[in-house]
Amino acid sequence: MQQENNSRRNFVKFTALGSLLTIGSPAALLAATTNDTNGKIKLEKGQVILFQGDSITDAGRDKNNKDANSTAALGNGYAYLAAAALLQAHADKNLTIYNRGISGNKIPDLASRWQADCLNLKPDVLSIFIGVNDFWHTLTSGYKGTISNYTDGFKKLLDDTKKSLPNVQLIIGEPFGVTGIKAVTASWYPAFDEYRASAKAIAEAYGATFIPCQKVFDAAQKEAPGSYWTGDGVHPTIAGAELMAHAWLKAVK
Amino acid sequence: MQQENNSRRNFVKFTALGSLLTIGSPAALLAATTNDTNGKIKLEKGQVILFQGDSITDAGRDKNNKDANSTAALGNGYAYLAAAALLQAHADKNLTIYNRGISGNKIPDLASRWQADCLNLKPDVLSIFIGVNDFWHTLTSGYKGTISNYTDGFKKLLDDTKKSLPNVQLIIGEPFGVTGIKAVTASWYPAFDEYRASAKAIAEAYGATFIPCQKVFDAAQKEAPGSYWTGDGVHPTIAGAELMAHAWLKAVK
Repeated sequence: MQQENNSRRNFVKFTALGSLLTIGSPAALLAATTNDTNGKIKLEKGQVILFQGDSITDAGRDKNNKDANSTAALGNGYAYLAAAALLQAHADKNLTIYNRGISGNKIPDLASRWQADCLNLKPDVLSIFIGVNDFWHTLTSGYKGTISNYTDGFKKLLDDTKKSLPNVQLIIGEPFGVTGIKAVTASWYPAFDEYRASAKAIAEAYGATFIPCQKVFDAAQKEAPGSYWTGDGVHPTIAGAELMAHAWLKAVK
Repeated sequence: MQQENNSRRNFVKFTALGSLLTIGSPAALLAATTNDTNGKIKLEKGQVILFQGDSITDAGRDKNNKDANSTAALGNGYAYLAAAALLQAHADKNLTIYNRGISGNKIPDLASRWQADCLNLKPDVLSIFIGVNDFWHTLTSGYKGTISNYTDGFKKLLDDTKKSLPNVQLIIGEPFGVTGIKAVTASWYPAFDEYRASAKAIAEAYGATFIPCQKVFDAAQKEAPGSYWTGDGVHPTIAGAELMAHAWLKAVK
């Protein structure tokens, strides 16, 4: 079993470094275990943590407030919940925590503001949740981006980041959808699975901790229906945000 | 040691049922253990939980939003953080969680809106954090209320509540201040300690779970300075709100 997991991981790394578009079965790729990434991020005194992403990360934050460790600036989603837990549990470390997620963002939007909203903040830990809109907006807003644009853009973003911040510790969240709830219909599949597989393969290739959100939300539906965890299939409820925060916090020692 | 704690507890109960104003030493009273109250609240399917209090509970909630389990309606303080944890951990129970804290409130303010903002909501679990303003506003706003008004008003509120909702499970939070941080100066003591002692004695007398916030914030200062936990000595930072949420959650099974 260990053997099998290892070869799967090698396969993922190989395809991630080669062409992601040749992957035949995103589902098989996603089945590979990710438990080995838990607790990989080690927090040190004085470190800067940055949450980046779309509306799921933004979660109503006050964009005029650029402060770290500020309630208004952190919004009220998983980033705020995770920040609250970190600031309480690691009080001796004097952490600086920013949220720069912006509603509606896709990979090209992150790229256009990466210098100001990431590199200039010099994060020691950089968490990126992006990809739902890269797919979703192709259905709803006439967005022309492809899975290849997503993958290549994401890799370029990380290449630029590693050049500026060679010691940055990366966390990549899996784009997820709760099928059957409002926005997330059967028409999302199998195309959307490619974005999930891409995010995972990129995480493996760049040594990032991967947060397997789809698995987390799938498992949660044993406790309560999908509508309990997300209002529209995409945006978490309070319970869903706490679920994401828990999954995120597992990445940290 | 067990013996001593038990007699202290009996003393507390006796004075609580008699006249609270005869208590000579609030500090001695507060030294009694409260660990036996942990996990006393048992949550059941379909229950309603209500957070009541002042600005610490309010924490910027949208007062036009009367919904339960709504991010905007829960604010971004300890009530939201505790609600998120409850909704995630007890997903199978379909809990209904309200926040009706209002900034600046004292006991008379709660009394004037108790029918609409408490009894009508029929909470199964009622959490009340009140008392800082009952004292603080005597220093800053010419408020004329006394410790006796606080104690008698609080008891009347609970008597009315128990009449309407005989099975309600009560949680009472200790008014607390972080001395030396902005608003909370030496001039608060010893008078403010009487409010802490009163809240505790009332909790004992009414079978409420008592959240020992002062102890929680005192202990936290071993990890980080007071200003890390509260901006002005009264209002918690994010880390302080998480600290309160953790203390609150200990009350619940």
